Amino acid sequence: MKTDLVIIGTGSAGYTASIYASRYKVKHVIVGELPGGVITESHLVENFPTEEGISGMELGMKIQKHAKALGVEEITTTVTKVEKTKDGFKTWLQNGEEIESKAVLLTTGTISRKLNIPGEKELSGKGVAYCATCDGFFYRDKVVAVVGGSDSANTAAVYLSDIAKQVYLIARGKELKGETAWIDQLKETDNVEILLNTNVIEAIGSDKLEKLKLDKKYKGSEYLSVDGLFIEIGADPAVQLAKDLGVELTKNNHIHVKDNQESSVPGFFAAGDLTNKSNHFKQVITACSEGAIAAESIFKYLKK
Amino acid sequence: MKTDLVIIGTGSAGYTASIYASRYKVKHVIVGELPGGVITESHLVENFPTEEGISGMELGMKIQKHAKALGVEEITTTVTKVEKTKDGFKTWLQNGEEIESKAVLLTTGTISRKLNIPGEKELSGKGVAYCATCDGFFYRDKVVAVVGGSDSANTAAVYLSDIAKQVYLIARGKELKGETAWIDQLKETDNVEILLNTNVIEAIGSDKLEKLKLDKKYKGSEYLSVDGLFIEIGADPAVQLAKDLGVELTKNNHIHVKDNQESSVPGFFAAGDLTNKSNHFKQVITACSEGAIAAESIFKYLKK
Repeated sequence: MKTDLVIIGTGSAGYTASIYASRYKVKHVIVGELPGGVITESHLVENFPTEEGISGMELGMKIQKHAKALGVEEITTTVTKVEKTKDGFKTWLQNGEEIESKAVLLTTGTISRKLNIPGEKELSGKGVAYCATCDGFFYRDKVVAVVGGSDSANTAAVYLSDIAKQVYLIARGKELKGETAWIDQLKETDNVEILLNTNVIEAIGSDKLEKLKLDKKYKGSEYLSVDGLFIEIGADPAVQLAKDLGVELTKNNHIHVKDNQESSVPGFFAAGDLTNKSNHFKQVITACSEGAIAAESIFKYLKK
Repeated sequence: MKTDLVIIGTGSAGYTASIYASRYKVKHVIVGELPGGVITESHLVENFPTEEGISGMELGMKIQKHAKALGVEEITTTVTKVEKTKDGFKTWLQNGEEIESKAVLLTTGTISRKLNIPGEKELSGKGVAYCATCDGFFYRDKVVAVVGGSDSANTAAVYLSDIAKQVYLIARGKELKGETAWIDQLKETDNVEILLNTNVIEAIGSDKLEKLKLDKKYKGSEYLSVDGLFIEIGADPAVQLAKDLGVELTKNNHIHVKDNQESSVPGFFAAGDLTNKSNHFKQVITACSEGAIAAESIFKYLKK
């Protein structure tokens, strides 16, 4: 197959780029594993500007529906490799297809790091969460734990301390890392308890999360009753395809893009959670915005 | 009145910042002249990712409704002055009120330059438009004119040449300015006619635009029949309040913000079309994104 643009990743950034690309009449296809992207895993989104409350699945599907209404071909499979060619790029799909294109846009987002403990997968979305900004509000006046010892966990705990009745911040190290301001503030906040040198080793509950098992006793018990567990141990940008292509990455493994979302490899663009843009604030709205910007840049790139 | 944050501007960026600020429990008010912002003047928006087709008014009101549902106080008036104080800022409103705050977010967007010709105002939204990306699709297979002689006009004409039957690009200068690639392309495109040394001096039509009056005859006539007129002579960022405060501007008069949307004056943030961000791509989705990023940064700023 030959086309002008291949969009890799079927999340908010990819579909929004597709919407703009269609409106710019850029010939393209979109390829991804998970139609709708990672937002489809959020049970409720309350911060998308035009939606007061919507399931992540419904939000993801709205954007996909818009993209498809404009006629894009979507291929649900994994991309195994992207290679530079004389005239552009060649993209290999797991289903055996190969696509030649003048430009590529990578929008494969990030993958939240998992604790990989018993119960984690089963209770995901039922008390176990990976994004305090997304899901914090559902724990108003409840008891929550945050796992992690660096900025993302610290800011999650600060945020949750305003909402929840009680916040346990559980870190495996002997002290918290990250910005002093956050750590100072956590120590001064009455409803935050910091448990150091501690690991959560099991998430327990039948229909929903009820308690955590710790590897170090807290107040005489190895069990801690909580309504929510926020796992904030970071997320890894899904940049393997870019890395294999020799694209410049930041020290935190994000794709270094210019203001027009183009990477260090001409014609290879990136948008969404895997870039160094949007002040690293990873939201549906920021991903959509980067997708739109990328599409406009690609339109100009192809016209030249 | 005393609060933590004053958001100036009631468009997509301002309301989205308010939504995020409310969710971060940042005490704030929002002040602006035009509830919903400039998008409310677009008769149809087809590129917002979650909306296949929506009037600009409805889109603006959706975002406003979300912001208000979270409890923000909105004041509809003009801000006349913002001053730095010892502890933050003082904002003067035309209605006589004064607001003291720790931080300010400016989201007053840009103002499209007008031709200031007879008929322009009366036919605005009825054939006279200021944004090809927003409104181009409504002129499929029709005849349109673009006024302007630089990149924004050139790219508008390139874009419209794929959609419209015929495009007239009307520039007052003796040649087009801007990137050569665009100009070369325009010259090679069959359905684009470039009229140089020419000014549009009147927009004529009863219910909708029918023809333009030119100050230099084209093919023997001073009248040119068109369905649409795109005025692409630039837009000026509404930055007077920031300028008075001594905020650093770019050479094109946009507010120079860092990745966290903070200006050169600590505590003074900006988001939306008046900043140097989003690759200068001025869309509802980019404005919303910058508003969200700003709110997260302001939350952190206030917590420190």
